[in-house]
Amino acid sequence: MKLYDMVKAPNPRRVRIFLAEKGVTIETVEVDIPGGANLGSDYLAINPRGVVPTLALDDGSVIDESIAICRYIDALHPEPNLFGREPLEIARVEQWQRRCELEGLFNIAAVFRNTAAPFANRAMPGTAPSLPQIADMAERGRVLTRHFIDALEARLGESDFVAGDRYTVADITALVAIDFAKWVQIRISDAHPNLQRWYATVSARPSARA
Amino acid sequence: MKLYDMVKAPNPRRVRIFLAEKGVTIETVEVDIPGGANLGSDYLAINPRGVVPTLALDDGSVIDESIAICRYIDALHPEPNLFGREPLEIARVEQWQRRCELEGLFNIAAVFRNTAAPFANRAMPGTAPSLPQIADMAERGRVLTRHFIDALEARLGESDFVAGDRYTVADITALVAIDFAKWVQIRISDAHPNLQRWYATVSARPSARA
Repeated sequence: MKLYDMVKAPNPRRVRIFLAEKGVTIETVEVDIPGGANLGSDYLAINPRGVVPTLALDDGSVIDESIAICRYIDALHPEPNLFGREPLEIARVEQWQRRCELEGLFNIAAVFRNTAAPFANRAMPGTAPSLPQIADMAERGRVLTRHFIDALEARLGESDFVAGDRYTVADITALVAIDFAKWVQIRISDAHPNLQRWYATVSARPSARA
Repeated sequence: MKLYDMVKAPNPRRVRIFLAEKGVTIETVEVDIPGGANLGSDYLAINPRGVVPTLALDDGSVIDESIAICRYIDALHPEPNLFGREPLEIARVEQWQRRCELEGLFNIAAVFRNTAAPFANRAMPGTAPSLPQIADMAERGRVLTRHFIDALEARLGESDFVAGDRYTVADITALVAIDFAKWVQIRISDAHPNLQRWYATVSARPSARA
């Protein structure tokens, strides 16, 4: 197995943190997305979608959605458990993983991809159609990111971790989202004491450096 | 348990088809979203996010992301299997479920919510901030929906079902997406023979009427 990676990008980091929590090591290959390497013929021969992270299996096939890669690793290495054990915990982990992704990470990405100069004519990742940036989408993304941060602050007033009383994949997505938000100048503050407490805890885990 | 539902809306349909495939019956309560019932105080007392579908448990807590609801049902009723059995199948189901959702369903929703008159000042679902529609997002959504349909056509030239050789939750999301696309006048055609073959097969299952 080989993981096509980009050290600075948020989605590959989700997979690297997941692997670190599982104690699993996979050979990684850095792909220079701002330089366009993900759209070069060498990389497209590996993954025609041109997206990162991509897990290349030994038979040449690839898995290329971050959470799909995590579920593959999880099925091979079930412990420590990160997706929940009993029905209600499984549901809470999925619910909060999705909220942190759909309301958090993706809105921050909407701000970034619709404003960052290197993506001026490729507002969508990989080989998706070339599309111009939409300034109003970036603005909407900012409003929704702040709304998400407030929702997460409220949630972390109810429980120690995002999905409940222990660390799960939902915390990984939330941590990556909060760090990614800094790229678009949105930061948690003293108005978010629960988020600050949680952020200190999850950032102190060795996996956060992955 | 009680499922807050809206018969015409795509996300609740995903859950209803999933339940039908599992052979599980849950009491449903119709919520009139176009009429604003999901934002009324009665419904917000059940789910403060104001979204549908919502599964209300007997202890008063709720689960409210479609796939989180499906995973809860799956954990209670593992058979028939719809999320994959061995590691690679689990990964493929997750990968394709996500692609059908992120590239399909969500782009179609972007067209719909940014053009439909009833959502003029609430382009986001539930109690998310009131936001004006963005015409350029609708147009982008159209381009990306067509791109997704082409990708799904190619995929269904490789395998009988979306995630492989049997019916899974990825087919449910894909079916709901293809039917939802009609709302914004995007239809599969004779240019999509594999999609047409697959669509006839999955639409003929009794669950498709759920």
